This record gives sequence, C-alpha cells and structure tokens, in this order.
Amino acid sequence: MDSKALYQISYGLYVVGTKIDGKDAGCVVDAFIQSTSSPVPTVILCSIQANQTNTAIKQTGEFTISVLTKKTDPFVIANFGFQSGRDADKWANVPAKRMGDLPILENAAAWLRCKVTDFKELTTHTVFFCDVTDAMVGEGEVLTYGEYQKNWKGRAQEAFKAFRESGKAPAPAPRWVCSICGYVYDGTIPFEELPEDWKCPICGHPKSVFVKE
Amino acid sequence: MDSKALYQISYGLYVVGTKIDGKDAGCVVDAFIQSTSSPVPTVILCSIQANQTNTAIKQTGEFTISVLTKKTDPFVIANFGFQSGRDADKWANVPAKRMGDLPILENAAAWLRCKVTDFKELTTHTVFFCDVTDAMVGEGEVLTYGEYQKNWKGRAQEAFKAFRESGKAPAPAPRWVCSICGYVYDGTIPFEELPEDWKCPICGHPKSVFVKE
Repeated sequence: MDSKALYQISYGLYVVGTKIDGKDAGCVVDAFIQSTSSPVPTVILCSIQANQTNTAIKQTGEFTISVLTKKTDPFVIANFGFQSGRDADKWANVPAKRMGDLPILENAAAWLRCKVTDFKELTTHTVFFCDVTDAMVGEGEVLTYGEYQKNWKGRAQEAFKAFRESGKAPAPAPRWVCSICGYVYDGTIPFEELPEDWKCPICGHPKSVFVKE
Repeated sequence: MDSKALYQISYGLYVVGTKIDGKDAGCVVDAFIQSTSSPVPTVILCSIQANQTNTAIKQTGEFTISVLTKKTDPFVIANFGFQSGRDADKWANVPAKRMGDLPILENAAAWLRCKVTDFKELTTHTVFFCDVTDAMVGEGEVLTYGEYQKNWKGRAQEAFKAFRESGKAPAPAPRWVCSICGYVYDGTIPFEELPEDWKCPICGHPKSVFVKE
C-alpha cells in the first residue's frame, strides 16, 4: 500500500472557534464536509483528540468555522496551526469578531456555527456530527489544502518564526479605501507600490484620494 | 441563515467503484475525507441513500475510489454523475481497470480500496467509516469541486448530451508518445495543432517521430 495516495484527497482549510473553561480556543482543520442538506444542513468535522480544541468542543458542544481564503494572512494559519491553545491565547493575535458568543475571523469566505449532535471516537481523531445553526457568506476565493502546501506553508513558517522572535503578531495589512466612491483596493500589488497615475477602477479618481483604514 | 455559506466548503472529486448483485456499479462523490492515519489509514465517505451505489456498498462492504484530475474527460463525470446505475452499465463507457475484483478508472491521481467498518444513517445520506486496505498513486493534479463548477460542468453537460444523442461514449483521447525516448505528450494544446518545428522536450527529436497509441 502506497500511503501517499491519501495525500490526493482534497480539502479546504478552516479555523475552528470554540471555548474552553470560558476562554476562546481554536485550531486549523481540513477534514470538514457537508453530510446532508435537509431538513437542516449537517456537517462532519474530524478533529485530533490530542488538541485542546477537541476538549473544548466536547465541553460546549458548539464551534464556529471560518473558511480561509486566498487572501488569508499566512500568519493566521501559523497562529492556529503551529501552537497549542494551552500555551497561547490564539484569538488575541488575529483580527477577530463574534458569531454569538464564539470567535470567528474578521476576513473569511464564509462562517458557520455548528452544534454537535453526536460523535464517534477513532484511534487518533474524533468525528463530530453537527447541525449547522447559523451561516453567513463573506468574501474571497476559498483556499485549498493543496494550495496551502504549495504557496502558504513556507510563508506561514516564516511568519511564525518572526512572531516567536518578536513576541508580536503582525499587524493586519491596512485597507486602502477610495474616499470618493468607497471602493476597497484588493489587488495583489501593495497599494503603496502602485504607479502614481493609477486610478480608482470604479470612479476614476486618482490614487491620492485613497485613505488608509 | 445563509445556506450559500455551505458552498464554501471545499472538496475533491472522486469516482466510487463497487458491485451490486455481482455487477460493477459506481458514482461520483465529493464528500470524502481521511479520518485518521494510524494504526491503519481510515476514511469517511458520505453517500446519498437514494443512489444504487449506496445499496451496492452496503451489499459488499467495499468500494474503490479513483481520484479525478485536471485531465479527467468531462464525460467521465457526466457518465458517473448524470445517470443511475439502474439504467446504465456506467463502467462499460469509460477506460477502466481493476483493483482486485472492483473497477477503477484507468487515469486517476490515486486509487484507494476501502473496507467499511461501520456506518451511520443521516436523513438523506449514509456516512461510511472505512479502513483503507490498498492504495496506489497515479498521475495528474487533483481536480477540486470548485474547479468542476467553474470549468468542467458545462463540458460535462455537453458531453452527456452528445452521448444521449449518439448512444456512444466518446473515445478516450489518444496518447502521443515519442518513439525515441518514450516521452508522453501531455500539453493542453492538441498534439495535432503543435507547430511543425515543435520538438520532444526530453530528447529533442522532431514532432514526426511521435506515434499515436
């Protein structure tokens, strides 16, 4: 058996948000699927037993999912994936907001709130069967695990090294907004590096009318 | 609740191969994840109860998975996804081979053989818990469900319409092989349309030494 064949199963990437002993907890997951859509949407999450997030989900029976996008800061993945919630307040390091009482990322392709209805222990993982109790659509193209391996992993490792050395999470990239029409710049070239004759693609006003938020 | 948020869960695309009453059966699935890797790799398949493939898996307790790639003929998806095995011998329409006694596609990124150890019924789907009992790596970049929606779906619909009208499955695209070094052409431009001065990228011999297989 060539177990590399298992690497060809394709996944998205998600940040789980939950609580343990009243404090926010979370981690990065990939094994997450929709299981049925009616009468209510249900999903399955497969989570490592050794993780604090696993204990947290069992304690409260609820969690959120933030769907990562191709614009997700690689540090977000490092923050939730490269350290344990036993040592770090992960949610304090990233731009976060709330879905009810649980944490979610500020920028995501979508957010789901899931309520555990049943679970099954495997050797190393727990399979959680859940009803989706809330769902919101965000912005951005979803990131796949394959793309993470190809383009994000090295950047996540670098970002985490810098974080360990400085003890400071990177500041989220500023948003540049057109003060005339409200267009939010979302190109891949940093806004500062755009040519001086660049114009707002919506209202045509010059670069100088953009403000940093 | 905005149920479009569920569309942001990312999947691969797979053809299931199984048997019912001694005959080959199968369908296309997306909800398939690895659940643990030790002591043996285990996977979870979520399959629609109404499908013949679901009954087939319950009958034999085994199935194969062929992982679709960016070179998969859209007809393959139409063949396994747009018709029921109750009306058609799906495996007769596509280039197939065997993994033990079960059918698999000839071209795939990987193949897995899975043995059901437990299952759970949801409202519309069955969740199958499986041990992976055999695994082989193939070739090609894996296709995601998002890419299928974007680039394959229309082509699959067209291919299926042609199949319904002619009653004939499309012949698989020929392979062009360099008779000098054995290189198999795998570019996106059809081989016939390459310029006459095109050369084998491995041994540098001209286009004319290539043979159709």
